[in-house]
Amino acid sequence: MSIRTGIVGISGFGGGEALRLIAAHPAFELVYAAGDSTAGSRIADRFPGAPHGLADLVIEKWDPEALPELDLLFASLPTGASAEALARVPGSVRIVDIGGDHRHVDGWAYGLADVWPERIAGQRRVANPGCFPAAALTALAPLLTEGLIAPGTIVIDAKTGVSGAGRGGGDGFGYATTNENLQPYGLLKHVHMPEMETTIGLLSGGSAAGLVFTPHLVPMTRGLLVTMYCRGQATTAQCRDAARAFYADRPFVRLSDAPPQTKWAAGSNLCFVHYAADPARDLVMALGVVDNLGKGAAGQAVQNANIICDLPETTGLAGMPVWP
Amino acid sequence: MSIRTGIVGISGFGGGEALRLIAAHPAFELVYAAGDSTAGSRIADRFPGAPHGLADLVIEKWDPEALPELDLLFASLPTGASAEALARVPGSVRIVDIGGDHRHVDGWAYGLADVWPERIAGQRRVANPGCFPAAALTALAPLLTEGLIAPGTIVIDAKTGVSGAGRGGGDGFGYATTNENLQPYGLLKHVHMPEMETTIGLLSGGSAAGLVFTPHLVPMTRGLLVTMYCRGQATTAQCRDAARAFYADRPFVRLSDAPPQTKWAAGSNLCFVHYAADPARDLVMALGVVDNLGKGAAGQAVQNANIICDLPETTGLAGMPVWP
Amino acid sequence: MSIRTGIVGISGFGGGEALRLIAAHPAFELVYAAGDSTAGSRIADRFPGAPHGLADLVIEKWDPEALPELDLLFASLPTGASAEALARVPGSVRIVDIGGDHRHVDGWAYGLADVWPERIAGQRRVANPGCFPAAALTALAPLLTEGLIAPGTIVIDAKTGVSGAGRGGGDGFGYATTNENLQPYGLLKHVHMPEMETTIGLLSGGSAAGLVFTPHLVPMTRGLLVTMYCRGQATTAQCRDAARAFYADRPFVRLSDAPPQTKWAAGSNLCFVHYAADPARDLVMALGVVDNLGKGAAGQAVQNANIICDLPETTGLAGMPVWP
Amino acid sequence: MSIRTGIVGISGFGGGEALRLIAAHPAFELVYAAGDSTAGSRIADRFPGAPHGLADLVIEKWDPEALPELDLLFASLPTGASAEALARVPGSVRIVDIGGDHRHVDGWAYGLADVWPERIAGQRRVANPGCFPAAALTALAPLLTEGLIAPGTIVIDAKTGVSGAGRGGGDGFGYATTNENLQPYGLLKHVHMPEMETTIGLLSGGSAAGLVFTPHLVPMTRGLLVTMYCRGQATTAQCRDAARAFYADRPFVRLSDAPPQTKWAAGSNLCFVHYAADPARDLVMALGVVDNLGKGAAGQAVQNANIICDLPETTGLAGMPVWP
Repeated sequence: MSIRTGIVGISGFGGGEALRLIAAHPAFELVYAAGDSTAGSRIADRFPGAPHGLADLVIEKWDPEALPELDLLFASLPTGASAEALARVPGSVRIVDIGGDHRHVDGWAYGLADVWPERIAGQRRVANPGCFPAAALTALAPLLTEGLIAPGTIVIDAKTGVSGAGRGGGDGFGYATTNENLQPYGLLKHVHMPEMETTIGLLSGGSAAGLVFTPHLVPMTRGLLVTMYCRGQATTAQCRDAARAFYADRPFVRLSDAPPQTKWAAGSNLCFVHYAADPARDLVMALGVVDNLGKGAAGQAVQNANIICDLPETTGLAGMPVWP
Repeated sequence: MSIRTGIVGISGFGGGEALRLIAAHPAFELVYAAGDSTAGSRIADRFPGAPHGLADLVIEKWDPEALPELDLLFASLPTGASAEALARVPGSVRIVDIGGDHRHVDGWAYGLADVWPERIAGQRRVANPGCFPAAALTALAPLLTEGLIAPGTIVIDAKTGVSGAGRGGGDGFGYATTNENLQPYGLLKHVHMPEMETTIGLLSGGSAAGLVFTPHLVPMTRGLLVTMYCRGQATTAQCRDAARAFYADRPFVRLSDAPPQTKWAAGSNLCFVHYAADPARDLVMALGVVDNLGKGAAGQAVQNANIICDLPETTGLAGMPVWP
Repeated sequence: MSIRTGIVGISGFGGGEALRLIAAHPAFELVYAAGDSTAGSRIADRFPGAPHGLADLVIEKWDPEALPELDLLFASLPTGASAEALARVPGSVRIVDIGGDHRHVDGWAYGLADVWPERIAGQRRVANPGCFPAAALTALAPLLTEGLIAPGTIVIDAKTGVSGAGRGGGDGFGYATTNENLQPYGLLKHVHMPEMETTIGLLSGGSAAGLVFTPHLVPMTRGLLVTMYCRGQATTAQCRDAARAFYADRPFVRLSDAPPQTKWAAGSNLCFVHYAADPARDLVMALGVVDNLGKGAAGQAVQNANIICDLPETTGLAGMPVWP
Repeated sequence: MSIRTGIVGISGFGGGEALRLIAAHPAFELVYAAGDSTAGSRIADRFPGAPHGLADLVIEKWDPEALPELDLLFASLPTGASAEALARVPGSVRIVDIGGDHRHVDGWAYGLADVWPERIAGQRRVANPGCFPAAALTALAPLLTEGLIAPGTIVIDAKTGVSGAGRGGGDGFGYATTNENLQPYGLLKHVHMPEMETTIGLLSGGSAAGLVFTPHLVPMTRGLLVTMYCRGQATTAQCRDAARAFYADRPFVRLSDAPPQTKWAAGSNLCFVHYAADPARDLVMALGVVDNLGKGAAGQAVQNANIICDLPETTGLAGMPVWP
């Protein structure tokens, strides 16, 4: 089977990772690539290691009304840039939007694939979660659905590699000042908070009104860790049991015995979850690790695409993480 | 004035930073250096950039009963290695112990220099705080003394560069696996917790029994950030006012308007503190940044030595951070 | 077809990369793993992202006389450790030795796969080139065979990521002192020189007696670049034409228009070659880039294994490099 | 003595390092700072660790005709931006130009301070060498003046940290794509070549017509190494003797026994030189290490300023390198 596939936003890091995954995918055939800053280049001009079969594909200027015949489109556009444009893509084209415009929007399934595959199956429009929510919600879901933590008490201390800021991150992400530097930002008001509040509410049936979320920029290219502190009386064993049951059949979530390291997930679609609780302190800790460009972006997008194309979920995603 | 000064533990990172600071200090004259793994080497063999005046000093095997005439000794030994040995140093020698054996121990002042200089002045034995407590307690002290947070509710999410693990950190800190990796460790039970609990109790008059502390190893050589979440009804302005008043005359603490970055402190003895509060969420956030080898080790040690030697506190410590 | 495959030396970086490639290989089935320092562990204990099918395989203590039935063995042992042991492996087992003991040794094909596939096909014993020779010789081969450079005049200025030193690299490769540091070593006498001299002689029919080789340790985990300066009157166009012809049908060698960057090859089996010449200065420059664990170790090993197992050379090796 | 000092280009990395050194200098008093992108900010807005005495100095828009009364001006402007503007600075102001416009220009001393202090003393206009020439020429000078190498045969393989590209380096220097990447550039035609050719000619009395220079961008913030290959029949001992004699009284050049590492010089004005020769291969290798912002920019600028202000050369520059 060959599924005619396109990528828009291929010059960004999320789009580039989608290219890498699609190039190795046995069913998705890349027939269209678009990107504003790179339009007119060949794939090989931007990705010197592209396979010979894709090297000469010319990157187009993005125009949703001038698409070739497509079965599937991955969109990796800056926030605000996809809502209007994707509305003009023919309904026959399945879309996975890696960008932020369609999360918890009517007509779009929210693609938290390890948690809600059944809500995604059969859809034609899927909104990929943000990278921070992908890690946080995957680790929290078993606790929230089992009522092991109070949904209004969650503190998320998040750390991400620099590629999360995207290729257009600008001066603030220059090597000389980002290296050997750890930078907290967005205190009390990060853009990902509403997405997490909504999802926490859906998972728990309660309110996440007290949510606290603090992202930090870590001097590394890839990798994302959330360290979460919640109030609750559950034991570590109860948390682990809940996660083991919740993810019993899910191929990409790994419950780890030791606190997970970001490099464990590098280049993969895996999500590592870990729990540590102390009832005496009314404390449940939940940790989640993903590659921000893998499960946090293109990996989960391919997983979602597999689901809506009725392919086995792991198709093209079984590769081991890169170590070291 | 020349103060005859020694360093024991010069082969470690803390001892090496002490050497750098002492070499630039106008009153401390290095006359003795000891270190087990490097005994017999010249200073210049281990520190190729040492000034000519120190280059030929030979590193001795550490023997507290065979010291030359000394006024001041900096000890930077592994935990457990200094208690017995330093007891054998003549009482006439002032000691600053960078290691962990004498914190909150009778007969030793606890050298949280920016907070309690008056407890340090006039002492002959000072125990330097650990690197995590140095950052955390300096940021918390104004809040605790003013009663702006509940002392039993503090969550410390801490991040440190790799030099915090010391030169003898071993295989776990090899470049290939530490680079591009972020590693949480010591969940619920880190060795620095009792030191922090005791100090929080002293500062607040209350109990820190609910303290939560989670360190993370960040792929950078130097730098340490604590992101702290406390319950309290104070506003950001109240926290800032408290810190401004508390540190009005203190030369090394900077209240920053923006969330501080670790590189701001690189190579210096500065501590940056920052606050953000939201009464609606019953939340007070306090952030502290230090160089783990500066204020977190050798910088604070030199500050303590200045205090006990009746020198201006900033002597030899006024250098700007290295940027970028 | 399922080829029963083993790895010895799985705890090292080369062995670990072999595992990653074999796990994704459609014909090689991993049935045996051995490693001294990790014997007794499960694969998943050391590689948390291993696929479920391999997770429970127990790592054995290496004993060449207690092998299960194997068709193929990858050996990634320290120099000096494989010569005697591999001699005791049954002759029916095909072996690719990633280590250094069998290069240019009787009875072993020298596995410079992009250059000499025909010498490898049909063999049962292949010695993988070292990582520096892999990059250098692949870039030089077209020039040497066409006589475009004088073989006795080659200066190789080489730069490698830290994983090239192996997991057992020891204290010299700790993060704190390796980061933000560039280290030349082995001036005039590196261990890889004889291998390169011999191969240059074979390719050119001349003597490489004047060869100069200087490796440098670069603060990055993966990646290897050789910048080579040779005497010759060829033009850039002649060099490029020679390489284009030489590698016309070879799938893994890319002639690049711009100077190649190490990250272009990350995680892949690609080798990028580039040429720049100036007859007025009697100068031909040749550059080669590989991933030291890919084409420089496990990638080329799998390529060699494909060749000796009569599989298409690119089987399991077609993945795009990881970017960024 | 107080020397009224200004910096133009303070927003760049070279200007920022000049600020750090001047802040610690006992004779230079900073009274003026200018920078286009940061005009209107206070020093503390851009440099959070600035000492209290400098924190409130406002950065001016650069206007050479609206200077306050100055004794000394450090200029760190992009190439092409200083020639015309500095001509309008009053002749009474001593100028050290860190930028590239005045190297080997009439009326400007070439500030290769360790080699030619006597040409600098008494001047009012000094052009600082480029960062690559600073390292290369300091290592080559003893060999060239003693005739130990053939001046027309020098191959310079150079490696620099990313701060060498300056703060305005742009997209090419973003963290995500620069990290874990080693990038050669400017093959056969780098902008620093004429400066080096001219200086080599002056030092040797011969022609450097065959000079080859290849820079590489290394994933580190600071540090610069040149690995140089020359033809010559000198022995290692002869090269070392020549360097030892040449730099007998010079405070900042260190002849090292082992190949020098870039981190040895971090944050300092030191230059490490090292030699290895093999007459049988007609080869003399010379290595030089500097901090590209220290001896390669602001450190050497302060050294030059000390010389032209009749201060001891090491004033304000005696600090040990930062390690680790």
